Amino acid sequence: MQKLLTRIQTAHSLLCVGLDPVGDDAAVAGRLREVVAQTSAFAAAFKPNLAFFLSRENGVALLQATVQSVPKDIPVILDGKFGDIANTADHYARFAYDVVGADGVTVNPYMGDDAVRPFARPGKLVFSLAKTSNHPRHSLQDAALTRGGYLSDYAARVARLLDEELTDSIIGLVVGATEPAAMARVRAACPHQWFLVPGIGAQGGDLAATLKAGLRTDGSGLLINASRSIWQADDAGAAARELRDQINERRP
Amino acid sequence: MQKLLTRIQTAHSLLCVGLDPVGDDAAVAGRLREVVAQTSAFAAAFKPNLAFFLSRENGVALLQATVQSVPKDIPVILDGKFGDIANTADHYARFAYDVVGADGVTVNPYMGDDAVRPFARPGKLVFSLAKTSNHPRHSLQDAALTRGGYLSDYAARVARLLDEELTDSIIGLVVGATEPAAMARVRAACPHQWFLVPGIGAQGGDLAATLKAGLRTDGSGLLINASRSIWQADDAGAAARELRDQINERRP
Repeated sequence: MQKLLTRIQTAHSLLCVGLDPVGDDAAVAGRLREVVAQTSAFAAAFKPNLAFFLSRENGVALLQATVQSVPKDIPVILDGKFGDIANTADHYARFAYDVVGADGVTVNPYMGDDAVRPFARPGKLVFSLAKTSNHPRHSLQDAALTRGGYLSDYAARVARLLDEELTDSIIGLVVGATEPAAMARVRAACPHQWFLVPGIGAQGGDLAATLKAGLRTDGSGLLINASRSIWQADDAGAAARELRDQINERRP
Repeated sequence: MQKLLTRIQTAHSLLCVGLDPVGDDAAVAGRLREVVAQTSAFAAAFKPNLAFFLSRENGVALLQATVQSVPKDIPVILDGKFGDIANTADHYARFAYDVVGADGVTVNPYMGDDAVRPFARPGKLVFSLAKTSNHPRHSLQDAALTRGGYLSDYAARVARLLDEELTDSIIGLVVGATEPAAMARVRAACPHQWFLVPGIGAQGGDLAATLKAGLRTDGSGLLINASRSIWQADDAGAAARELRDQINERRP
């Protein structure tokens, strides 16, 4: 928790570098080391995507090696969208924190708050899905509730209650960049929470509109994720630095 | 798909044996082989719980060995509650089907139907969460929608639409046994779909009430899961046979 806040200060960055490794097994290990090394100076956090590791032979070992290659002062958020209850969630927490060595996770709140709690170990960062960056034909997140608002707003309010209750950890939200109006709505409901923001870059989210809708009044509170646009860049470091600077130019 | 239907006929069983291995690494591999061997005669399917494998060193290898130990005519459903979109979901599908060798998965529909579709490969079984067996303080599943019903009903209707659209695979539902009234509601909305049912045994669900509320008019359509009550039994085979028989006695 403190690790994230300190890192954001020292790196003067709200950029989260997503690691969704594509390519054959032989090339990927080297590219992961390269991207981490080149972007570390500009990253507030790294976010490895669990699926892109598990789909390979020896994927967990590659994930462990990747996390170990990250400088110790930069938090690593394991993007696993974990969503299960009680003792099952506890086993996923052991995987993320003890086996992989991550500092935080993404979780899916469909099963309710008891699916989120096991991840809230002291000092850890937990980002619970509210509004994601995709556009499904049948969207549960956009289902309208009788008590007002949408499911995404309700999921955000539940995460806010947990953040207020579980003061030893950060319970943040995943809020996609592809609908700035939804981000503004969630920010109004959750003025203090941290948002992890996918959807900038390859998915077409508008950076200026996202920052306007999502930044807290203190000019912080967002982690802007970029994965493909950095992974595919000839110079990953330059791509990360450029995005970090574009974000900072738009902070008040 | 055909594999499940054939297996249910030949084993005359609606029992799904859940594999949530607890215990130290040395003992667990042997107990997994033992439980699979002793219960195979009575199992319509096996359901390994991904979290209980990932939380161990070399968990993926143990999971692969476990799946390989299952007789080829019994489907294996990898309980991963996968919930992510587009190319990420595609990587989870590769993991479940190609790396692990499973015949089916559980998925989380929070992100919408496009998080479910990548798992619907021909012949595969996909169980999408509707109503789970836990009782959270803040339950998204029980959120009331302005267009009628609860989120769990809406999730069930989305899965039904997908099952009708994607005819090469089975898109079923996860419906817990701890609220028979909710099961009856989902069955009314989805008269033909397969339900995977956790919550019998250690979680206290009532078997008779569950079967009454959930069986289709043809006396089938449910896979009743039991994990802890079989894993912890001195004689796992006897525990599985007994539960299979209790289920069959209550089928019309």
